[in-house]
Amino acid sequence: MTNQNLVELKNVTKESVESAVDLLKEYLSFPTISAQNSAIPETVQFVVKMIEEAGGEAQTLDDLSGNPVVYGYFPAGSNGDSSKTLLFYNHYDVQPPEPLDEWNSEPFEATIRDGKLFARGVADNKGDLVARLTAIKILQKTQGGLPCNIKFLIEGEEEIGSPNLEPYLQKYRDLFKADACIWEFGGKDEQDRISMVAGIKGMAYLELTCVGADIDMHSSVGAYVDNAAWRLVQALATMKNQQNEILVEGFYDGMEPPTEAVMEAVHALPFNEEAVTNLYGLRRPLITKAKDQDPREAMVLQPTMTICGLVSGYTGEGSKTVLPKNAKAKVDCRLVPGQDPDHILECVQRHLEKNGFHDIQVTSLNGQKAYRSDFSHPFISHVMESAQEVYGKEGILAPNSAGTGPMYIFGEQLQLPIVSTGVGWVGSKAHAPNESIRLQDFENGIVHMAYMLLGFPAALESSQENVEASK
Amino acid sequence: MTNQNLVELKNVTKESVESAVDLLKEYLSFPTISAQNSAIPETVQFVVKMIEEAGGEAQTLDDLSGNPVVYGYFPAGSNGDSSKTLLFYNHYDVQPPEPLDEWNSEPFEATIRDGKLFARGVADNKGDLVARLTAIKILQKTQGGLPCNIKFLIEGEEEIGSPNLEPYLQKYRDLFKADACIWEFGGKDEQDRISMVAGIKGMAYLELTCVGADIDMHSSVGAYVDNAAWRLVQALATMKNQQNEILVEGFYDGMEPPTEAVMEAVHALPFNEEAVTNLYGLRRPLITKAKDQDPREAMVLQPTMTICGLVSGYTGEGSKTVLPKNAKAKVDCRLVPGQDPDHILECVQRHLEKNGFHDIQVTSLNGQKAYRSDFSHPFISHVMESAQEVYGKEGILAPNSAGTGPMYIFGEQLQLPIVSTGVGWVGSKAHAPNESIRLQDFENGIVHMAYMLLGFPAALESSQENVEASK
Repeated sequence: MTNQNLVELKNVTKESVESAVDLLKEYLSFPTISAQNSAIPETVQFVVKMIEEAGGEAQTLDDLSGNPVVYGYFPAGSNGDSSKTLLFYNHYDVQPPEPLDEWNSEPFEATIRDGKLFARGVADNKGDLVARLTAIKILQKTQGGLPCNIKFLIEGEEEIGSPNLEPYLQKYRDLFKADACIWEFGGKDEQDRISMVAGIKGMAYLELTCVGADIDMHSSVGAYVDNAAWRLVQALATMKNQQNEILVEGFYDGMEPPTEAVMEAVHALPFNEEAVTNLYGLRRPLITKAKDQDPREAMVLQPTMTICGLVSGYTGEGSKTVLPKNAKAKVDCRLVPGQDPDHILECVQRHLEKNGFHDIQVTSLNGQKAYRSDFSHPFISHVMESAQEVYGKEGILAPNSAGTGPMYIFGEQLQLPIVSTGVGWVGSKAHAPNESIRLQDFENGIVHMAYMLLGFPAALESSQENVEASK
Repeated sequence: MTNQNLVELKNVTKESVESAVDLLKEYLSFPTISAQNSAIPETVQFVVKMIEEAGGEAQTLDDLSGNPVVYGYFPAGSNGDSSKTLLFYNHYDVQPPEPLDEWNSEPFEATIRDGKLFARGVADNKGDLVARLTAIKILQKTQGGLPCNIKFLIEGEEEIGSPNLEPYLQKYRDLFKADACIWEFGGKDEQDRISMVAGIKGMAYLELTCVGADIDMHSSVGAYVDNAAWRLVQALATMKNQQNEILVEGFYDGMEPPTEAVMEAVHALPFNEEAVTNLYGLRRPLITKAKDQDPREAMVLQPTMTICGLVSGYTGEGSKTVLPKNAKAKVDCRLVPGQDPDHILECVQRHLEKNGFHDIQVTSLNGQKAYRSDFSHPFISHVMESAQEVYGKEGILAPNSAGTGPMYIFGEQLQLPIVSTGVGWVGSKAHAPNESIRLQDFENGIVHMAYMLLGFPAALESSQENVEASK
């Protein structure tokens, strides 16, 4: 790995980027909306074709429930290290494009404007797959082969919560075996620094429902009829106090204490309170202020319990004198490593029962465990250091994102370090209208992947040496 | 007042009811929807015409804000008592007819089916006005004149909360001066007993709003951003506890203790817990049970605080990970005599500030005081006793209804006893599709009004005697 290599990779990428963009545009033309079961088979076929055209072997796994999982394999070249394997995790499905009238161009006709490529799924996550495949092609061209084995797991249900991924990973654990994993997403922050995460938060998304009667009633009966909305309000109020402390017994069970490396990384993260306050137009101080807490620690290391939605009775303009038949709350708990969404559900149910709210039903709408890679693993440092060389700028590495994904299943089944990086930017608008990537980020992302792969075997060696030394 | 009179009134009413129904049908053809400012002038003109055709003088009062108030006057006949005056309160406006697709016939084309007359406003309150005017015509025909002076106040904004009535009553206090008042509505209960009220509850309908930010946020920021929905939940939970006790300081201020007559009447009211539970499909016991309270006492004598609506963030199916920018609650407080809606608003505002919820705005959407007539007044007994003679069945008299209306303004400005009775029935569906009255109730209601008027001067004399005796 020399500077000479980096210069050559940059030059060859510049020549290859146009055809890579053309390939990406074609990939983006498939409306692969998993929530609507749209264009799944044709997208799978196209993904297989892209892998094969890049010189790899592809296998479509469809013997279990859910959309097929595509496996891709590229063996190390003759001068590479065939004892080392890198796994890329991607997904071929995208979010629904609605609201359509807010798009400035067709969501499934990729369009270039101002150096950006606009389309649904371009940032999340089709652009990353094409960048990674292009990096492989460039390495084969410039190095005469790959420095290591490369595998892909490309699923089709990430945008609906990966409900069928775990059985595939269990059954095909040996197929996907690798030494390290690059996760699907990432990009530049508002100061144009590459921003990576080595983990994600988990989630227990709960729905609390109180049914008080069969029908809405005239509010005058409030003198003697109990009120589902009051019941729900009282129940919720026992779960979190005015100081934003979660009062559900057992909620914090299992939380793993952060390592020193994690704490250091947390304190190195940027956080601009004024910028956050202005961005959202916040009316109240950050809740971390009253607790004298560092918001970066809260973001990475603390679980949350957020009311995402409340609804009961009459919600329109003006007054309607109704005593509502039912009331509902949607509560999203973001979990940290060691917490278990099933346990959280049980704790909330037990808490409500203990407090006399037998009439409130709790159901889980989404449960995923958090995952944090071994933060001190040399692979993670290598991915960050190679990025800094390529981008010529200091990067940001968080122990985990505040968001959620199926990373825990990978860590559990495959036991490998994971870091997430990609070709997005702060304005990518994943999940929103006018999703985009910047073409320059796409080009640099290809270079980064190729350059990172070149140094990958050596980085793993140093890992092994560390392990040996510590024996 | 003899049985001979009652038989004659019944016979003449039977002959007159067909033309009375025709008149009512014509009146019902006006879509007098005050909330939509529809058909006001033509309805006013028609009301004036009906009064004049019944032999009265009409005056349209329109020199203050809001829809005109119609004044009607019928002097006592030569063999009547011109020192006694009865006031009828009615309104010519109706509720909007929506949802239209649930009507079995056109809401403004009155239709007879199964002995019932269906149309918007027929029970609330156009049927009562025509019944009262028809009673007057019958008395003039059978008795050669009226037993007392009769006045009408017919307003056009009852269905939007009578926002402009008080200034009219203040300015025209002398015009509307009377000895007693028959209120707009009433009818038969589920056991076909005539059911009357001598008062109404008041209302303080409040909207609580918490704005936390300019935009909805990704729920992952819940680690450090405060949540408007949690704030509202916590604030509401301080206002009423799990035992359904209202905790707002000053809320109960001014409540007048019930007289013995009121308590007796409350305990004479029917209440069937099982029927109520089945009617609404209630899941929990009545809240009065835990407090060992009589639900009839709660209904008549206790104020309420009901959540009518709650809304924040995502309220659809499934999960959406959003931290809502705001949250709203609609809270309806039913008040009893002595409580003041303005004071309630102030108390809630003070309570929230004292508990640290400066960020929650409270606004009033509707404020009306409760009113309870002097329950022992002989006029009220007279209206009930004459009804029992006409209907041949025991009636029900409640000191006040659990519902609300502008009765307090009348009591305050005119200082007279008020009782409410009318031609509705338990299935009238006022405010709902397929509103109806039963033709037999309409006919009996006419007889009741005529028969009640015949005995009115004597009933007031006995009242005067009582006053003299107690001096």
